[in-house]
Amino acid sequence: MPEKYIGVFDSGLGGLTCVKELMELLPNEPIVYFGDTGRVPYGSKSNETIIKYARSDINFLKTFDLKMIVVACGTASAIALPEITGELDIPTFGVIDTAAAAAVSATECGRVGIIGTAGSIRSGAYEKKIKEINPEIITTATACPLFVPLVEAGHTKTQVARLVAEEYLEKIKSAGVDTLILGCTHYPLLKETIASVMGEGVTLIDPGKIVAGYVREYLSRNKMLALASDYKFFVSDCPDDFEKLAKDFLQRDIPGGVEKIDIEKYV
Amino acid sequence: MPEKYIGVFDSGLGGLTCVKELMELLPNEPIVYFGDTGRVPYGSKSNETIIKYARSDINFLKTFDLKMIVVACGTASAIALPEITGELDIPTFGVIDTAAAAAVSATECGRVGIIGTAGSIRSGAYEKKIKEINPEIITTATACPLFVPLVEAGHTKTQVARLVAEEYLEKIKSAGVDTLILGCTHYPLLKETIASVMGEGVTLIDPGKIVAGYVREYLSRNKMLALASDYKFFVSDCPDDFEKLAKDFLQRDIPGGVEKIDIEKYV
Repeated sequence: MPEKYIGVFDSGLGGLTCVKELMELLPNEPIVYFGDTGRVPYGSKSNETIIKYARSDINFLKTFDLKMIVVACGTASAIALPEITGELDIPTFGVIDTAAAAAVSATECGRVGIIGTAGSIRSGAYEKKIKEINPEIITTATACPLFVPLVEAGHTKTQVARLVAEEYLEKIKSAGVDTLILGCTHYPLLKETIASVMGEGVTLIDPGKIVAGYVREYLSRNKMLALASDYKFFVSDCPDDFEKLAKDFLQRDIPGGVEKIDIEKYV
Repeated sequence: MPEKYIGVFDSGLGGLTCVKELMELLPNEPIVYFGDTGRVPYGSKSNETIIKYARSDINFLKTFDLKMIVVACGTASAIALPEITGELDIPTFGVIDTAAAAAVSATECGRVGIIGTAGSIRSGAYEKKIKEINPEIITTATACPLFVPLVEAGHTKTQVARLVAEEYLEKIKSAGVDTLILGCTHYPLLKETIASVMGEGVTLIDPGKIVAGYVREYLSRNKMLALASDYKFFVSDCPDDFEKLAKDFLQRDIPGGVEKIDIEKYV
Protein backbone atom coordinates (compact mmCIF):
# COMPACT_ATOMS: atom_id res chain seq x y z
CA MET A 1 0.00 0.00 0.00
CA PRO A 2 1.44 3.42 -0.89
CA GLU A 3 2.35 5.66 2.03
CA LYS A 4 0.21 8.67 2.91
CA TYR A 5 1.64 12.18 2.66
CA ILE A 6 2.14 14.95 5.15
CA GLY A 7 0.63 17.95 3.35
CA VAL A 8 2.37 21.28 4.03
CA PHE A 9 1.37 24.69 2.70
CA ASP A 10 2.56 28.26 2.95
CA SER A 11 1.91 31.55 1.15
CA GLY A 12 5.15 31.02 -0.74
CA LEU A 13 8.71 30.04 0.06
CA GLY A 14 8.84 30.47 3.81
CA GLY A 15 7.20 27.15 4.69
CA LEU A 16 10.32 25.45 3.36
CA THR A 17 12.07 26.30 6.65
CA CYS A 18 9.47 23.97 8.22
CA VAL A 19 9.92 21.31 5.50
CA LYS A 20 13.67 21.41 6.17
CA GLU A 21 13.04 20.54 9.84
CA LEU A 22 10.53 17.81 8.90
CA MET A 23 13.04 16.26 6.48
CA GLU A 24 15.70 16.24 9.18
CA LEU A 25 13.51 14.91 11.99
CA LEU A 26 11.50 12.48 9.84
CA PRO A 27 13.72 11.35 6.95
CA ASN A 28 11.30 8.57 5.93
CA GLU A 29 8.14 10.65 5.56
CA PRO A 30 6.48 11.47 2.21
CA ILE A 31 5.80 15.22 2.03
CA VAL A 32 3.71 17.21 -0.47
CA TYR A 33 4.30 20.98 -0.34
CA PHE A 34 2.25 23.77 -1.84
CA GLY A 35 3.63 27.34 -1.95
CA ASP A 36 1.08 29.94 -3.05
CA THR A 37 3.63 32.04 -4.93
CA GLY A 38 0.93 33.41 -7.25
CA ARG A 39 -0.93 35.08 -4.36
CA VAL A 40 1.93 35.81 -1.96
CA PRO A 41 2.07 37.72 0.42
CA TYR A 42 -0.80 36.76 2.75
CA GLY A 43 0.40 38.99 5.61
CA SER A 44 -0.93 42.23 4.15
CA LYS A 45 -4.31 40.85 3.02
CA SER A 46 -7.70 40.90 4.81
CA ASN A 47 -8.89 38.03 7.02
CA GLU A 48 -11.62 37.13 4.51
CA THR A 49 -9.07 36.79 1.71
CA ILE A 50 -6.58 34.81 3.85
CA ILE A 51 -9.31 32.31 4.85
CA LYS A 52 -10.41 31.91 1.23
CA TYR A 53 -6.82 31.30 0.10
CA ALA A 54 -6.07 28.78 2.89
CA ARG A 55 -9.23 26.86 2.01
CA SER A 56 -8.17 26.50 -1.63
CA ASP A 57 -4.59 25.57 -0.62
CA ILE A 58 -6.00 22.72 1.50
CA ASN A 59 -8.37 21.67 -1.30
CA PHE A 60 -5.39 21.29 -3.59
CA LEU A 61 -3.36 19.30 -1.01
CA LYS A 62 -6.37 17.02 -0.48
CA THR A 63 -6.03 15.79 -4.07
CA PHE A 64 -3.23 13.66 -2.50
CA ASP A 65 -3.74 10.87 0.02
CA LEU A 66 -2.85 12.80 3.21
CA LYS A 67 -2.41 11.68 6.78
CA MET A 68 -2.07 15.19 8.18
CA ILE A 69 -1.84 18.85 7.22
CA VAL A 70 0.79 21.30 8.47
CA VAL A 71 -0.05 24.97 8.03
CA ALA A 72 3.50 26.31 7.81
CA CYS A 73 2.33 29.89 7.18
CA GLY A 74 2.15 32.07 10.30
CA THR A 75 -0.54 34.30 8.83
CA ALA A 76 -2.75 31.38 7.69
CA SER A 77 -2.26 29.57 11.02
CA ALA A 78 -3.28 32.70 12.92
CA ILE A 79 -6.25 33.76 10.83
CA ALA A 80 -7.55 30.83 8.77
CA LEU A 81 -6.86 27.77 10.92
CA PRO A 82 -9.36 28.62 13.71
CA GLU A 83 -12.05 29.02 11.02
CA ILE A 84 -11.40 25.86 9.04
CA THR A 85 -10.12 23.26 11.53
CA GLY A 86 -13.68 22.01 12.04
CA GLU A 87 -14.09 21.33 8.30
CA LEU A 88 -11.15 18.89 8.16
CA ASP A 89 -11.22 15.14 8.76
CA ILE A 90 -7.46 14.67 9.29
CA PRO A 91 -5.23 16.12 12.03
CA THR A 92 -4.03 19.65 11.25
CA PHE A 93 -1.14 21.42 12.93
CA GLY A 94 -0.53 25.13 12.73
CA VAL A 95 2.53 26.99 13.86
CA ILE A 96 0.77 29.16 16.47
CA ASP A 97 -0.36 26.77 19.24
CA THR A 98 2.85 24.75 19.24
CA ALA A 99 5.17 27.79 19.22
CA ALA A 100 3.08 29.54 21.91
CA ALA A 101 3.44 26.48 24.17
CA ALA A 102 7.19 26.37 23.51
CA ALA A 103 7.54 30.08 24.34
CA VAL A 104 5.64 29.64 27.63
CA SER A 105 8.01 26.80 28.59
CA ALA A 106 11.08 28.77 27.59
CA THR A 107 10.49 32.08 29.37
CA GLU A 108 11.90 32.48 32.88
CA CYS A 109 11.08 36.14 33.43
CA GLY A 110 7.51 35.78 32.14
CA ARG A 111 7.90 38.24 29.28
CA VAL A 112 7.59 37.01 25.68
CA GLY A 113 8.04 38.98 22.45
CA ILE A 114 6.30 38.16 19.17
CA ILE A 115 7.22 39.36 15.68
CA GLY A 116 5.31 38.56 12.48
CA THR A 117 3.55 39.96 9.43
CA ALA A 118 0.91 42.70 9.71
CA GLY A 119 -1.88 40.09 9.43
CA SER A 120 -0.46 37.76 12.09
CA ILE A 121 0.17 40.52 14.59
CA ARG A 122 -3.23 42.15 13.94
CA SER A 123 -4.89 38.80 14.73
CA GLY A 124 -3.31 38.66 18.21
CA ALA A 125 -3.29 34.86 17.82
CA TYR A 126 0.01 34.25 19.64
CA GLU A 127 -0.95 36.50 22.56
CA LYS A 128 -4.35 34.81 22.93
CA LYS A 129 -2.81 31.34 22.95
CA ILE A 130 -0.05 32.34 25.40
CA LYS A 131 -2.60 33.93 27.78
CA GLU A 132 -4.72 30.78 27.54
CA ILE A 133 -1.79 28.66 28.72
CA ASN A 134 -0.56 31.14 31.33
CA PRO A 135 -2.49 34.40 31.85
CA GLU A 136 0.37 35.95 33.83
CA ILE A 137 2.81 36.11 30.95
CA ILE A 138 3.32 39.60 29.54
CA THR A 139 3.50 39.74 25.75
CA THR A 140 4.83 42.45 23.41
CA ALA A 141 4.15 42.13 19.68
CA THR A 142 5.41 44.04 16.63
CA ALA A 143 4.69 43.68 12.91
CA CYS A 144 7.84 43.59 10.73
CA PRO A 145 6.50 44.11 7.17
CA LEU A 146 9.97 44.60 5.62
CA PHE A 147 11.48 41.33 6.89
CA VAL A 148 9.95 39.10 4.16
CA PRO A 149 11.04 41.31 1.21
CA LEU A 150 14.49 41.71 2.80
CA VAL A 151 14.94 37.92 3.06
CA GLU A 152 13.75 37.43 -0.51
CA ALA A 153 16.18 40.12 -1.70
CA GLY A 154 19.05 38.31 0.04
CA HIS A 155 19.38 40.97 2.77
CA THR A 156 19.76 38.66 5.77
CA LYS A 157 23.08 39.73 7.29
CA THR A 158 23.63 43.17 5.71
CA GLN A 159 23.73 46.62 7.29
CA VAL A 160 20.25 47.25 5.84
CA ALA A 161 18.91 44.12 7.58
CA ARG A 162 20.55 45.24 10.82
CA LEU A 163 19.08 48.78 10.66
CA VAL A 164 15.57 47.50 9.91
CA ALA A 165 15.85 44.89 12.70
CA GLU A 166 16.96 47.58 15.16
CA GLU A 167 13.92 49.70 14.21
CA TYR A 168 11.42 46.84 14.52
CA LEU A 169 12.87 45.24 17.66
CA GLU A 170 13.26 48.44 19.71
CA LYS A 171 9.88 48.09 21.48
CA ILE A 172 10.41 44.36 22.14
CA LYS A 173 13.88 44.97 23.58
CA SER A 174 12.61 47.73 25.87
CA ALA A 175 9.97 45.34 27.19
CA GLY A 176 12.76 43.14 28.62
CA VAL A 177 11.65 39.85 27.09
CA ASP A 178 13.83 36.73 27.44
CA THR A 179 11.97 34.79 24.69
CA LEU A 180 11.07 35.92 21.17
CA ILE A 181 8.75 34.08 18.78
CA LEU A 182 9.86 34.39 15.12
CA GLY A 183 6.22 34.39 14.01
CA CYS A 184 6.76 34.13 10.24
CA THR A 185 8.48 31.30 8.39
CA HIS A 186 10.87 33.67 6.61
CA TYR A 187 12.35 35.00 9.84
CA PRO A 188 14.65 32.04 10.69
CA LEU A 189 16.82 33.25 7.81
CA LEU A 190 17.31 36.51 9.75
CA LYS A 191 18.09 34.62 12.97
CA GLU A 192 21.71 35.80 13.25
CA THR A 193 20.81 39.45 12.76
CA ILE A 194 17.83 39.25 15.11
CA ALA A 195 19.89 37.44 17.77
CA SER A 196 22.63 40.04 17.54
CA VAL A 197 20.15 42.94 17.90
CA MET A 198 18.31 41.26 20.80
CA GLY A 199 21.56 40.46 22.61
CA GLU A 200 22.53 37.46 24.74
CA GLY A 201 20.10 35.64 26.99
CA VAL A 202 17.11 35.86 24.61
CA THR A 203 15.75 32.52 23.34
CA LEU A 204 14.49 32.66 19.75
CA ILE A 205 11.54 30.34 19.06
CA ASP A 206 11.40 29.04 15.46
CA PRO A 207 7.80 27.81 14.95
CA GLY A 208 8.68 25.66 11.91
CA LYS A 209 11.17 23.72 14.01
CA ILE A 210 8.76 23.41 16.93
CA VAL A 211 5.85 22.14 14.81
CA ALA A 212 8.14 19.57 13.16
CA GLY A 213 8.88 18.19 16.63
CA TYR A 214 5.14 17.96 17.39
CA VAL A 215 4.50 16.18 14.10
CA ARG A 216 7.15 13.56 14.86
CA GLU A 217 5.77 13.04 18.37
CA TYR A 218 2.20 12.70 17.04
CA LEU A 219 3.06 10.27 14.23
CA SER A 220 5.19 8.15 16.51
CA ARG A 221 2.57 8.05 19.32
CA ASN A 222 -0.16 7.06 16.83
CA LYS A 223 2.02 4.54 15.01
CA MET A 224 1.63 6.51 11.79
CA LEU A 225 5.31 6.77 10.81
CA ALA A 226 6.09 6.02 7.18
CA LEU A 227 8.96 3.90 5.89
CA ALA A 228 9.96 5.65 2.68
CA SER A 229 10.24 9.33 1.85
CA ASP A 230 8.85 10.94 -1.29
CA TYR A 231 8.82 14.66 -2.01
CA LYS A 232 6.47 16.67 -4.20
CA PHE A 233 6.63 20.46 -4.57
CA PHE A 234 3.93 22.64 -6.17
CA VAL A 235 3.55 26.39 -6.56
CA SER A 236 0.92 28.68 -8.09
CA ASP A 237 3.44 30.81 -10.05
CA CYS A 238 7.11 31.16 -11.05
CA PRO A 239 8.40 27.60 -10.33
CA ASP A 240 11.90 28.56 -11.55
CA ASP A 241 12.26 31.48 -9.13
CA PHE A 242 10.95 29.21 -6.36
CA GLU A 243 13.46 26.51 -7.17
CA LYS A 244 16.33 29.00 -7.16
CA LEU A 245 15.41 30.69 -3.85
CA ALA A 246 14.39 27.38 -2.22
CA LYS A 247 18.02 26.39 -1.67
CA ASP A 248 18.45 29.15 0.93
CA PHE A 249 15.42 27.91 2.86
CA LEU A 250 15.91 24.16 2.49
CA GLN A 251 19.72 24.25 2.60
CA ARG A 252 19.72 21.69 -0.22
CA ASP A 253 18.33 21.41 -3.76
CA ILE A 254 14.59 20.81 -4.17
CA PRO A 255 14.29 17.03 -4.60
CA GLY A 256 12.39 16.19 -7.79
CA GLY A 257 11.67 19.66 -9.14
CA VAL A 258 8.74 22.06 -8.83
CA GLU A 259 5.42 22.00 -10.69
CA LYS A 260 3.06 24.93 -11.31
CA ILE A 261 -0.68 24.44 -10.73
CA ASP A 262 -3.71 26.75 -11.17
CA ILE A 263 -4.75 27.29 -7.55
CA GLU A 264 -7.87 29.27 -8.50
CA LYS A 265 -9.44 25.98 -9.65
CA TYR A 266 -9.48 24.68 -6.07
CA VAL A 267 -12.22 26.94 -4.68
CA MET B 1 -25.62 63.19 -20.98
CA PRO B 2 -23.32 61.91 -18.24
CA GLU B 3 -19.59 62.31 -18.86
CA LYS B 4 -17.43 59.31 -19.72
CA TYR B 5 -14.65 58.20 -17.38
CA ILE B 6 -10.90 57.84 -17.74
CA GLY B 7 -10.30 54.34 -16.37
CA VAL B 8 -6.99 53.89 -14.54
CA PHE B 9 -5.63 50.70 -13.02
CA ASP B 10 -2.56 49.55 -11.14
CA SER B 11 -1.49 46.52 -9.14
CA GLY B 12 -2.19 48.49 -5.97
CA LEU B 13 -1.44 51.94 -4.63
CA GLY B 14 1.29 53.13 -6.95
CA GLY B 15 -1.01 54.21 -9.79
CA LEU B 16 -2.24 56.99 -7.55
CA THR B 17 0.93 58.93 -8.38
CA CYS B 18 -0.45 58.98 -11.93
CA VAL B 19 -3.99 59.89 -10.75
CA LYS B 20 -2.49 62.81 -8.81
CA GLU B 21 -0.95 64.17 -12.03
CA LEU B 22 -4.21 63.61 -13.96
CA MET B 23 -6.19 65.46 -11.29
CA GLU B 24 -3.79 68.40 -11.45
CA LEU B 25 -3.54 68.59 -15.26
CA LEU B 26 -7.21 67.77 -15.94
CA PRO B 27 -9.26 69.00 -12.98
CA ASN B 28 -12.58 68.51 -14.81
CA GLU B 29 -12.16 64.85 -15.80
CA PRO B 30 -14.14 61.96 -14.26
CA ILE B 31 -11.73 59.20 -13.20
CA VAL B 32 -12.44 55.63 -12.08
CA TYR B 33 -9.46 53.91 -10.43
CA PHE B 34 -8.94 50.23 -9.70
CA GLY B 35 -6.05 49.12 -7.44
CA ASP B 36 -5.56 45.33 -7.37
CA THR B 37 -4.52 45.27 -3.69
CA GLY B 38 -5.73 41.67 -3.32
CA ARG B 39 -3.21 40.40 -5.88
CA VAL B 40 -0.37 42.92 -5.44
CA PRO B 41 2.55 42.75 -6.29
CA TYR B 42 2.57 42.07 -10.04
CA GLY B 43 6.31 42.66 -10.43
CA SER B 44 7.39 39.27 -9.09
CA LYS B 45 4.74 37.23 -10.97
CA SER B 46 5.01 35.40 -14.30
CA ASN B 47 4.01 36.99 -17.63
CA GLU B 48 1.03 34.64 -17.95
CA THR B 49 -0.31 35.69 -14.55
CA ILE B 50 0.29 39.40 -15.17
CA ILE B 51 -1.63 39.26 -18.48
CA LYS B 52 -4.53 37.38 -16.84
CA TYR B 53 -4.70 39.94 -14.03
CA ALA B 54 -4.55 42.95 -16.39
CA ARG B 55 -7.36 41.49 -18.47
CA SER B 56 -9.63 41.15 -15.44
CA ASP B 57 -8.70 44.64 -14.21
CA ILE B 58 -9.81 46.05 -17.58
CA ASN B 59 -12.98 43.93 -17.54
CA PHE B 60 -13.91 45.51 -14.23
CA LEU B 61 -13.16 49.06 -15.42
CA LYS B 62 -15.29 48.42 -18.52
CA THR B 63 -18.38 48.10 -16.29
CA PHE B 64 -18.17 51.94 -16.37
CA ASP B 65 -18.72 54.10 -19.41
CA LEU B 66 -15.07 54.75 -20.35
CA LYS B 67 -13.48 57.03 -22.93
CA MET B 68 -9.97 55.73 -22.39
CA ILE B 69 -7.85 53.42 -20.25
CA VAL B 70 -4.58 54.34 -18.57
CA VAL B 71 -2.42 51.42 -17.47
CA ALA B 72 -0.64 53.12 -14.59
CA CYS B 73 1.24 49.96 -13.60
CA GLY B 74 4.76 49.69 -15.04
CA THR B 75 4.72 45.88 -14.94
CA ALA B 76 1.29 45.58 -16.60
CA SER B 77 2.22 48.20 -19.23
CA ALA B 78 5.41 46.31 -20.05
CA ILE B 79 4.05 42.79 -20.12
CA ALA B 80 0.27 42.82 -20.58
CA LEU B 81 -0.40 45.88 -22.73
CA PRO B 82 1.33 44.57 -25.91
CA GLU B 83 -0.84 41.40 -25.61
CA ILE B 84 -4.20 43.03 -24.99
CA THR B 85 -4.17 46.36 -26.85
CA GLY B 86 -5.71 44.68 -29.90
CA GLU B 87 -8.69 43.46 -27.84
CA LEU B 88 -9.75 46.96 -26.78
CA ASP B 89 -12.10 49.32 -28.59
CA ILE B 90 -11.08 52.50 -26.75
CA PRO B 91 -7.70 54.28 -26.68
CA THR B 92 -5.32 52.80 -24.11
CA PHE B 93 -2.19 54.47 -22.78
CA GLY B 94 0.54 52.67 -20.91
CA VAL B 95 3.44 54.21 -19.09
CA ILE B 96 6.19 52.60 -21.20
CA ASP B 97 5.92 54.19 -24.66
CA THR B 98 5.31 57.68 -23.36
CA ALA B 99 8.14 57.60 -20.78
CA ALA B 100 10.54 56.01 -23.30
CA ALA B 101 9.86 58.88 -25.72
CA ALA B 102 10.37 61.43 -22.95
CA ALA B 103 13.70 59.82 -21.97
CA VAL B 104 14.93 59.87 -25.56
CA SER B 105 14.11 63.60 -25.76
CA ALA B 106 15.74 64.32 -22.40
CA THR B 107 19.12 62.60 -22.80
CA GLU B 108 22.00 64.65 -24.17
CA CYS B 109 24.80 62.12 -23.73
CA GLY B 110 22.75 59.26 -25.24
CA ARG B 111 22.83 57.07 -22.13
CA VAL B 112 19.57 56.28 -20.31
CA GLY B 113 19.07 54.29 -17.10
CA ILE B 114 15.92 52.32 -16.26
CA ILE B 115 14.82 51.02 -12.87
CA GLY B 116 11.69 48.95 -12.18
CA THR B 117 10.29 45.76 -10.68
CA ALA B 118 11.75 42.34 -11.55
CA GLY B 119 8.92 41.75 -14.06
CA SER B 120 9.30 45.10 -15.85
CA ILE B 121 13.07 44.82 -16.14
CA ARG B 122 12.91 41.16 -17.26
CA SER B 123 10.54 42.23 -20.07
CA GLY B 124 13.07 44.69 -21.49
CA ALA B 125 10.09 46.80 -22.60
CA TYR B 126 11.68 50.22 -21.98
CA GLU B 127 14.91 49.25 -23.77
CA LYS B 128 12.99 47.90 -26.79
CA LYS B 129 10.91 51.06 -27.09
CA ILE B 130 13.93 53.35 -26.66
CA LYS B 131 15.92 51.43 -29.33
CA GLU B 132 12.88 51.64 -31.64
CA ILE B 133 12.92 55.45 -31.37
CA ASN B 134 16.69 55.82 -31.48
CA PRO B 135 18.87 52.70 -31.87
CA GLU B 136 22.02 54.60 -30.85
CA ILE B 137 20.96 55.23 -27.28
CA ILE B 138 22.74 53.04 -24.72
CA THR B 139 20.49 51.73 -21.95
CA THR B 140 21.32 50.26 -18.53
CA ALA B 141 18.54 48.61 -16.54
CA THR B 142 18.31 47.32 -12.95
CA ALA B 143 15.50 45.67 -11.00
CA CYS B 144 14.90 47.21 -7.56
CA PRO B 145 12.66 44.66 -5.79
CA LEU B 146 12.96 46.32 -2.35
CA PHE B 147 11.81 49.79 -3.43
CA VAL B 148 8.06 49.01 -3.36
CA PRO B 149 8.08 47.43 0.14
CA LEU B 150 10.30 50.28 1.39
CA VAL B 151 7.85 52.92 0.12
CA GLU B 152 4.89 51.05 1.63
CA ALA B 153 6.75 50.81 4.96
CA GLY B 154 7.32 54.59 4.92
CA HIS B 155 11.07 54.25 4.25
CA THR B 156 11.39 56.95 1.60
CA LYS B 157 14.02 59.28 3.05
CA THR B 158 15.67 57.11 5.72
CA GLN B 159 19.20 55.72 5.97
CA VAL B 160 17.80 52.31 4.98
CA ALA B 161 16.27 53.79 1.81
CA ARG B 162 19.58 55.50 1.04
CA LEU B 163 21.65 52.30 1.49
CA VAL B 164 19.30 50.23 -0.67
CA ALA B 165 19.26 52.97 -3.34
CA GLU B 166 23.07 53.08 -3.35
CA GLU B 167 23.18 49.30 -3.87
CA TYR B 168 20.64 49.29 -6.69
CA LEU B 169 21.87 52.39 -8.50
CA GLU B 170 25.59 51.57 -8.51
CA LYS B 171 25.55 49.94 -11.96
CA ILE B 172 23.41 52.73 -13.45
CA LYS B 173 25.69 55.44 -12.01
CA SER B 174 28.81 53.72 -13.37
CA ALA B 175 27.20 53.68 -16.83
CA GLY B 176 27.28 57.51 -16.83
CA VAL B 177 23.61 58.07 -17.68
CA ASP B 178 22.15 61.60 -17.68
CA THR B 179 18.51 60.39 -17.68
CA LEU B 180 16.85 57.81 -15.43
CA ILE B 181 13.37 56.36 -15.93
CA LEU B 182 11.59 55.65 -12.63
CA GLY B 183 9.87 52.61 -14.17
CA CYS B 184 7.46 51.80 -11.34
CA THR B 185 4.69 54.03 -10.01
CA HIS B 186 5.93 53.74 -6.42
CA TYR B 187 9.33 55.20 -7.21
CA PRO B 188 8.36 58.89 -7.44
CA LEU B 189 7.98 58.72 -3.62
CA LEU B 190 11.72 57.89 -3.46
CA LYS B 191 12.59 60.73 -5.85
CA GLU B 192 14.59 62.75 -3.33
CA THR B 193 16.70 59.78 -2.23
CA ILE B 194 17.24 58.58 -5.81
CA ALA B 195 18.17 62.11 -6.97
CA SER B 196 20.65 62.50 -4.15
CA VAL B 197 22.31 59.12 -4.90
CA MET B 198 22.43 59.82 -8.66
CA GLY B 199 23.87 63.29 -8.12
CA GLU B 200 23.34 66.52 -10.07
CA GLY B 201 22.77 66.64 -13.81
CA VAL B 202 20.62 63.50 -14.00
CA THR B 203 17.03 64.00 -15.20
CA LEU B 204 14.52 61.70 -13.49
CA ILE B 205 11.59 60.66 -15.72
CA ASP B 206 8.33 60.03 -13.82
CA PRO B 207 6.16 57.95 -16.20
CA GLY B 208 2.90 58.75 -14.34
CA LYS B 209 3.50 62.45 -14.91
CA ILE B 210 4.49 61.93 -18.55
CA VAL B 211 1.42 59.82 -19.40
CA ALA B 212 -0.87 62.39 -17.74
CA GLY B 213 0.54 64.98 -20.17
CA TYR B 214 -0.16 62.68 -23.14
CA VAL B 215 -3.71 62.06 -21.92
CA ARG B 216 -4.41 65.81 -21.73
CA GLU B 217 -2.96 66.37 -25.18
CA TYR B 218 -5.00 63.48 -26.66
CA LEU B 219 -8.31 64.54 -25.06
CA SER B 220 -7.82 68.13 -26.05
CA ARG B 221 -6.83 67.30 -29.66
CA ASN B 222 -9.85 64.99 -30.05
CA LYS B 223 -12.27 67.39 -28.34
CA MET B 224 -12.98 64.79 -25.67
CA LEU B 225 -12.39 66.96 -22.59
CA ALA B 226 -15.02 66.68 -19.88
CA LEU B 227 -16.62 69.53 -17.96
CA ALA B 228 -17.13 68.06 -14.49
CA SER B 229 -14.91 65.82 -12.42
CA ASP B 230 -16.11 62.74 -10.55
CA TYR B 231 -13.87 60.28 -8.73
CA LYS B 232 -14.44 56.61 -7.98
CA PHE B 233 -11.88 54.36 -6.26
CA PHE B 234 -12.06 50.56 -6.08
CA VAL B 235 -9.69 47.94 -4.69
CA SER B 236 -9.70 44.14 -4.47
CA ASP B 237 -8.72 44.00 -0.76
CA CYS B 238 -8.13 46.11 2.37
CA PRO B 239 -9.88 49.38 1.39
CA ASP B 240 -9.03 50.93 4.79
CA ASP B 241 -5.28 50.37 4.43
CA PHE B 242 -5.51 51.73 0.88
CA GLU B 243 -7.31 54.85 2.04
CA LYS B 244 -4.73 55.48 4.76
CA LEU B 245 -1.66 55.02 2.52
CA ALA B 246 -3.29 56.79 -0.44
CA LYS B 247 -2.69 60.22 1.11
CA ASP B 248 1.08 59.85 0.61
CA PHE B 249 0.59 59.09 -3.07
CA LEU B 250 -2.23 61.49 -3.85
CA GLN B 251 -1.08 64.24 -1.51
CA ARG B 252 -4.72 64.70 -0.50
CA ASP B 253 -7.54 62.59 0.94
CA ILE B 254 -9.23 60.09 -1.37
CA PRO B 255 -12.33 61.92 -2.64
CA GLY B 256 -15.49 59.89 -1.95
CA GLY B 257 -13.98 56.84 -0.22
CA VAL B 258 -12.86 53.43 -1.44
CA GLU B 259 -14.97 50.39 -2.28
CA LYS B 260 -13.88 46.74 -2.29
CA ILE B 261 -14.88 44.50 -5.21
CA ASP B 262 -14.31 40.80 -6.00
CA ILE B 263 -11.90 41.02 -8.94
CA GLU B 264 -11.92 37.24 -9.54
CA LYS B 265 -15.45 37.64 -10.91
CA TYR B 266 -14.14 39.65 -13.88
CA VAL B 267 -12.35 36.84 -15.73
